[in-house]
Amino acid sequence: MDQTIMESGNRKIRVAILGATGYTGEEATRFLLDHPRVEIARLFSLEFVGKKVWEPFPRFSKKLDLVIEEFRADSSLEDCDVVMGCLPHKASMGLLGPLVEKGIKVIDLSADFRFAEVETYSAAYGVEHKYPHLLKEAVYGLPELNRDKLKGCSLVAVPGCYPTSAILGAAPLLKERLVRPSGIIIDAKTGISGAGRAPSARFHFPECNESVSPYGIGKHRHQPEIEEQFSRLYKGEVKVTFAPHLAPMTRGILSTIYLDPQGDVSLDRVRRVYEAMYADEPFVTVLGDGLYPRTADVTGTNSCHIGFTKTAEGKIVVACAIDNLVKGASGQAIQGLNAVFGFDETDGLTRV
Amino acid sequence: MDQTIMESGNRKIRVAILGATGYTGEEATRFLLDHPRVEIARLFSLEFVGKKVWEPFPRFSKKLDLVIEEFRADSSLEDCDVVMGCLPHKASMGLLGPLVEKGIKVIDLSADFRFAEVETYSAAYGVEHKYPHLLKEAVYGLPELNRDKLKGCSLVAVPGCYPTSAILGAAPLLKERLVRPSGIIIDAKTGISGAGRAPSARFHFPECNESVSPYGIGKHRHQPEIEEQFSRLYKGEVKVTFAPHLAPMTRGILSTIYLDPQGDVSLDRVRRVYEAMYADEPFVTVLGDGLYPRTADVTGTNSCHIGFTKTAEGKIVVACAIDNLVKGASGQAIQGLNAVFGFDETDGLTRV
Amino acid sequence: MDQTIMESGNRKIRVAILGATGYTGEEATRFLLDHPRVEIARLFSLEFVGKKVWEPFPRFSKKLDLVIEEFRADSSLEDCDVVMGCLPHKASMGLLGPLVEKGIKVIDLSADFRFAEVETYSAAYGVEHKYPHLLKEAVYGLPELNRDKLKGCSLVAVPGCYPTSAILGAAPLLKERLVRPSGIIIDAKTGISGAGRAPSARFHFPECNESVSPYGIGKHRHQPEIEEQFSRLYKGEVKVTFAPHLAPMTRGILSTIYLDPQGDVSLDRVRRVYEAMYADEPFVTVLGDGLYPRTADVTGTNSCHIGFTKTAEGKIVVACAIDNLVKGASGQAIQGLNAVFGFDETDGLTRV
Amino acid sequence: MDQTIMESGNRKIRVAILGATGYTGEEATRFLLDHPRVEIARLFSLEFVGKKVWEPFPRFSKKLDLVIEEFRADSSLEDCDVVMGCLPHKASMGLLGPLVEKGIKVIDLSADFRFAEVETYSAAYGVEHKYPHLLKEAVYGLPELNRDKLKGCSLVAVPGCYPTSAILGAAPLLKERLVRPSGIIIDAKTGISGAGRAPSARFHFPECNESVSPYGIGKHRHQPEIEEQFSRLYKGEVKVTFAPHLAPMTRGILSTIYLDPQGDVSLDRVRRVYEAMYADEPFVTVLGDGLYPRTADVTGTNSCHIGFTKTAEGKIVVACAIDNLVKGASGQAIQGLNAVFGFDETDGLTRV
Repeated sequence: MDQTIMESGNRKIRVAILGATGYTGEEATRFLLDHPRVEIARLFSLEFVGKKVWEPFPRFSKKLDLVIEEFRADSSLEDCDVVMGCLPHKASMGLLGPLVEKGIKVIDLSADFRFAEVETYSAAYGVEHKYPHLLKEAVYGLPELNRDKLKGCSLVAVPGCYPTSAILGAAPLLKERLVRPSGIIIDAKTGISGAGRAPSARFHFPECNESVSPYGIGKHRHQPEIEEQFSRLYKGEVKVTFAPHLAPMTRGILSTIYLDPQGDVSLDRVRRVYEAMYADEPFVTVLGDGLYPRTADVTGTNSCHIGFTKTAEGKIVVACAIDNLVKGASGQAIQGLNAVFGFDETDGLTRV
Repeated sequence: MDQTIMESGNRKIRVAILGATGYTGEEATRFLLDHPRVEIARLFSLEFVGKKVWEPFPRFSKKLDLVIEEFRADSSLEDCDVVMGCLPHKASMGLLGPLVEKGIKVIDLSADFRFAEVETYSAAYGVEHKYPHLLKEAVYGLPELNRDKLKGCSLVAVPGCYPTSAILGAAPLLKERLVRPSGIIIDAKTGISGAGRAPSARFHFPECNESVSPYGIGKHRHQPEIEEQFSRLYKGEVKVTFAPHLAPMTRGILSTIYLDPQGDVSLDRVRRVYEAMYADEPFVTVLGDGLYPRTADVTGTNSCHIGFTKTAEGKIVVACAIDNLVKGASGQAIQGLNAVFGFDETDGLTRV
Repeated sequence: MDQTIMESGNRKIRVAILGATGYTGEEATRFLLDHPRVEIARLFSLEFVGKKVWEPFPRFSKKLDLVIEEFRADSSLEDCDVVMGCLPHKASMGLLGPLVEKGIKVIDLSADFRFAEVETYSAAYGVEHKYPHLLKEAVYGLPELNRDKLKGCSLVAVPGCYPTSAILGAAPLLKERLVRPSGIIIDAKTGISGAGRAPSARFHFPECNESVSPYGIGKHRHQPEIEEQFSRLYKGEVKVTFAPHLAPMTRGILSTIYLDPQGDVSLDRVRRVYEAMYADEPFVTVLGDGLYPRTADVTGTNSCHIGFTKTAEGKIVVACAIDNLVKGASGQAIQGLNAVFGFDETDGLTRV
Repeated sequence: MDQTIMESGNRKIRVAILGATGYTGEEATRFLLDHPRVEIARLFSLEFVGKKVWEPFPRFSKKLDLVIEEFRADSSLEDCDVVMGCLPHKASMGLLGPLVEKGIKVIDLSADFRFAEVETYSAAYGVEHKYPHLLKEAVYGLPELNRDKLKGCSLVAVPGCYPTSAILGAAPLLKERLVRPSGIIIDAKTGISGAGRAPSARFHFPECNESVSPYGIGKHRHQPEIEEQFSRLYKGEVKVTFAPHLAPMTRGILSTIYLDPQGDVSLDRVRRVYEAMYADEPFVTVLGDGLYPRTADVTGTNSCHIGFTKTAEGKIVVACAIDNLVKGASGQAIQGLNAVFGFDETDGLTRV
């Protein structure tokens, strides 16, 4: 068993959150407040430095009295057991890499350690990787797939929001090779919080309210992430067409996935592989026949709802709903933290 | 030239609206108030009978002073040049059929006269057709495709909202046979007004607000309508996978259409066929490279915005946005009326 | 100390929820699942009888496996320590009255036991009261005011959503008699879930989306409830003008309260009485100078945020935000249950 | 009759829009496209200079082919009959003042020429006025009050959005002195487009969606504007408490106004003064007994809907709904332009 876990014994582990004032940092703070084995020890951000966290975020009033600190290269985090990085892509690796090297456990919500190959990362994100050797150490933090590897690991790369919904949605079919590895289409619809807290013309309320629109079809950086994980599940190269869309809501992702069966695959067979894979998963629900998920049923929770059908034309169509900020980010990060430390995976994540 | 048109001369034609208090009836009334060559002569409904139209709909206050009448089998409409039927599917044919037979021009917004074959209709809507012989007379009211047939015709079958967005979105590719007739996927997102004005648990505000969800994948009655029109354009059988979704907004449809090129089709070639087909269409805009439509840009108007791309994987992806109640219903009905009577197609439809 | 509390010892108390499938019943179930000292024992409803609760509500999948039961007059609830009534006004008393008489503790979310005088109830709700003698026994379940009376009591009348926001918003001023007892205006804005789960034309998504409108000004049944509690606080008759409004959101109430100071009352003085009254209240936050509450900061939580100012014209203006379904209903009911049984008032209510 | 009007004869007048790419500029463009006597001649902005207007705004595709120009101090506008200024407060006067002096008619949507006294302006907006002598020339552009003065005038100061709803809502009571000039409360709820197009943290979609909150109570710059116009109507000093609120919708303002009757004023009397004042107003509708306006019924139109009641407590409560961008800005500007040039006031504004 991992040393850290043993050391922690019955005391609560101490968590520092970097990027605490973005949406994922705030969300991590909300859930960790309910975690029976975690103490939120320190909050870092570039904004609101020196303020009590409840000043900019009145929801924390009477719940958490920490001062927001500025993170510096020499900030000592030796009083913390684990760091949760809620930082932007590209900025994240430079701040978290040294912490991993110092032996602090790191849960990174950015994309910086998600890829096996440094070339894939550089191609997708357009920068050199600063800590390429850590890619080998990082575990892709989807507990439903990588539970065993997460236990005791030093660096968790929390999956992206879109990839989480796509992977959980398609995993049973890919793993059992019931579908062809090409021609897969993922039409995803996201709430606006997926774009983060920084204001911009595109996410100004009157611009995106009452509107649905696609963006970056075939060019989104989550596509290579999805393809890498799909390929791993399929044990062979898988390519997808990924089309993200903005929907006029704050939270939620619905991925509708279109796949071609490999050979003769009945709807019953499809159901059996989903139920087999997810029977004991605390956060994944396979809906009954003819039922499809609604994002509203999962928002605010770490749950994932999946429904599917097979059409007369022979397509298998799967719909998978999560909350982009919870199962798609901070909730999944906490689930990963639980897996790392050997806690019950639902600790802190019991909200429905 | 059609007799009616000649007779009307410079006088305004008189329109009766059946089903005036549903969303499409109200919308038709709103637009027709601005129509330079139309007079709204009579409004019929089962609700609010005997009331001035501005009592239930204060927006018509000081604009339209008609009393809502109850429509009966023997209601004489001889004082009207044209009837706009904004009635539910299945109920529509029984009320409109006799009017067509009496020689009154009819614009039917229901699905009852949209199919060439009575069997297709019965299979999709689960009832016997009461006026099968009129299917031959009816013209599918998409002016961009059937302008010539609409001129002077006696019965216009206004296309469904989803089919309008799918057909305008895919027509140039199908007509030019640049895509394969199978494997086409239409992932459509609609605003809630598409469900009509009757309240139900599913469309209760707290149930559908802040939620995206699919429904009836592969089973929606608009699928055979889309397939019939796609096949007509392709001059060969076309099959589609149609997946409708509810989005938390009042109006708008975005159809994202995934197609496989037939042979080697460049993005340039795609652009050329769209621009060729829609160059002179007053209501269809082909967006520039890398741009995709937002439903908010077309709501409240009869416009249709189209954007497309070709992915590295070789899929052609087209996104097409309309307002489900305007270009997807009442606006298109007025455009059809204009085509029937030889008016300028934009009459009454100039709002942007 | 109350017998029940002593009996319960360390075992969890068993709760039955009547009306489990309405919004407040569902919300109570969600929060009670997290309660360390409560076991949800039985769920009753008129709908979905015989189904597992996760069938109509997939959010409870893998969390709660109870079958929904039909409640009958002879339903024995002797295996339960407390009943939470999430029933409609007027229907509630007939079902809950007998339970109280049998000695089962009852937390009633309806209005049926909220008034001290049976005449006030009958005037507001237009029916005879079936259990007028129980009005004396009932405690108005606002723990911030009635904590002591709630302890061990047999019947809790959970306050209405609007009254909760109005009372918490104005209590310090009324209690200290810093404001005049007349001319008070409460302009309240509510999310649509306040109307309950039953669909109707008025709460059909396209009808209330993107719209704000007042209703029932001066005639709402929460007005006499507010006046009774205001009068109790003021120890003298208080009258208000109450104007409720619908706002296009699912949850949340913001009450903006306009009051006239009695004599010379500085803003500092106002602040002091708020801070004094709410300093130790776990769910009430008094915001800093110049800050006003946003309903989004309290939705999904049992929190209440209050901000205020004094205008140049001499009005004291207070804004008070709660979640209508939580602090305005089910959360408050659980807080009341906690008070009754001597639990920590925040048990089950720690979400922020 | 005004010279300009005579000169224009039957030709269309030419309008230049300054600030064409903000919300009010875009809205003015949309409505003017439908105006039978106006030609949109030139569009100016600091953004998108050199682009066709349909590039950033695809809704104008195939409708308007103008290039967006940069406005400079020496930009000659001699080819235009009238300039519509859709510019920010404070910046507006410096650009429009010289045009007025050159004899070009100006419709200014900013606050810069709305006050009679330069001191009131400076106190509210915190800057020196650059063209104080023009304040005498400017006519407050609420045609329902100032129709006669608008005819042929050289400078129209279009009212603010909040003031329009407050003034139209209270005018009959103030003019007839049926209410007291003190203690008036205006609780206003606005859609987010009122904040303009510039993105900011506060109007970022996830921040204001699903939330209602007040801001700047007693400190909003529209309060002195309201007080000046109320005082003018009352012919005596009137003071108000003005409390603006953000509501989660794109468009619409609802002002709920609370007034104390002066002496014995029956609800019938109230109705009579409203109906008398607004009977012939094309854009103002007084709703029937017991009815209140919904903002959704007026959005997209130049209409104003008013409902009222008198409570048991003796308050008169008036609710007044407009679209903040139409009757509260660009529609009213066009109505003012129509009044200036002697056109039918509804020209270009017939949408319902």
